[in-house]
Amino acid sequence: MSTLKLHYFAVRGFGEYIRLLFVDNHINFEDVRYEIGGKEWKEMKPKMIFGHMPYLKGDGLEIVETGAIMRFLGRKFDLNGSTDEEVYFLDMFFEGSRDIRYTFSFQRTEEDYLTKTLPDGLQKLENLFKIHPGEFILGDKISYVDYSLFEELDVYHHWSKGILDNFPALKEFWERIWKRPNLKEYLEKRTADKVPLSATFEGNY
Amino acid sequence: MSTLKLHYFAVRGFGEYIRLLFVDNHINFEDVRYEIGGKEWKEMKPKMIFGHMPYLKGDGLEIVETGAIMRFLGRKFDLNGSTDEEVYFLDMFFEGSRDIRYTFSFQRTEEDYLTKTLPDGLQKLENLFKIHPGEFILGDKISYVDYSLFEELDVYHHWSKGILDNFPALKEFWERIWKRPNLKEYLEKRTADKVPLSATFEGNY
Repeated sequence: MSTLKLHYFAVRGFGEYIRLLFVDNHINFEDVRYEIGGKEWKEMKPKMIFGHMPYLKGDGLEIVETGAIMRFLGRKFDLNGSTDEEVYFLDMFFEGSRDIRYTFSFQRTEEDYLTKTLPDGLQKLENLFKIHPGEFILGDKISYVDYSLFEELDVYHHWSKGILDNFPALKEFWERIWKRPNLKEYLEKRTADKVPLSATFEGNY
Repeated sequence: MSTLKLHYFAVRGFGEYIRLLFVDNHINFEDVRYEIGGKEWKEMKPKMIFGHMPYLKGDGLEIVETGAIMRFLGRKFDLNGSTDEEVYFLDMFFEGSRDIRYTFSFQRTEEDYLTKTLPDGLQKLENLFKIHPGEFILGDKISYVDYSLFEELDVYHHWSKGILDNFPALKEFWERIWKRPNLKEYLEKRTADKVPLSATFEGNY
């Protein structure tokens, strides 16, 4: 296959799920980063199928929409489970955890977001995570959703140190992914570089 | 397989995508409808994996998250394309068109939503729709995304009569689905019954 080229903003955001999947699996890709509000993005935007990124190009395909990209990569690189039930379980887990992250957009100004709404969501993820005992969401084999879950937990940890303490399965998972040989250097560098957590809340790293 | 049981509110909303897929394909299912804010839903909510519906039960599985349910049914009932490219194309189309519908939640109070934001989104869907010439999104074969697209177009038509006139491929598609023998009676009944368009905007049918 031709080299995959990922276009996204110079922030973590939803594009970071894809970068982590590539880095951890040693998949060669071009990491094209756009300045938010910059000239390059203004020229690029009208060419995007739905007017936004992430945008992945390669294999003769133009690939957009975070969920569709993650599932595409999951199928392509054997990171999508091995039974119908596992495929469905990953899909549900990805969608549900993304909803919890989205909730932030609506409720972040509410006083109880960090003390109630987010912990409620984390409790649900903790319960789901424990269904398949082992190191990852499906147990022993890593999947595309482990990368999005890790990134989300890492963001929540930035927002509120200690928030993972009540969810031991998730916390151990988060610590485990931090130590993965292919990821460690990348993760330490993004922290040192203070890459913003998202396009919307730039200072919030 | 055991009879599928769909739990959702007594509105169209996202659950309607699933109902339309079942009705059009003559798939036997139990259509359990909950009153918004009613006692039954209050008892049910804590049992839901992520605290919300639609919720589909059957085949020994508990299935939640609209996108995950639609893709599950797409795979199960041969409504998910037949090549890797088609699977991806449907996934992207579903996600992108859902984003356009979600935008309404943020921007519906903005003056130019119906005159600018929504038509911009519809233009993108019109372009995508025309990639595979034929009656449906993939050309000749119906898919799970045809049901969500139809429902979304029908909602937009309720919001703003004539809004589809500038998008002939989408308009013809919308009219075509209305005439499908398995759906016609169901669609006429839901109009006569004034089933609300969504849980949030009850009066808006």
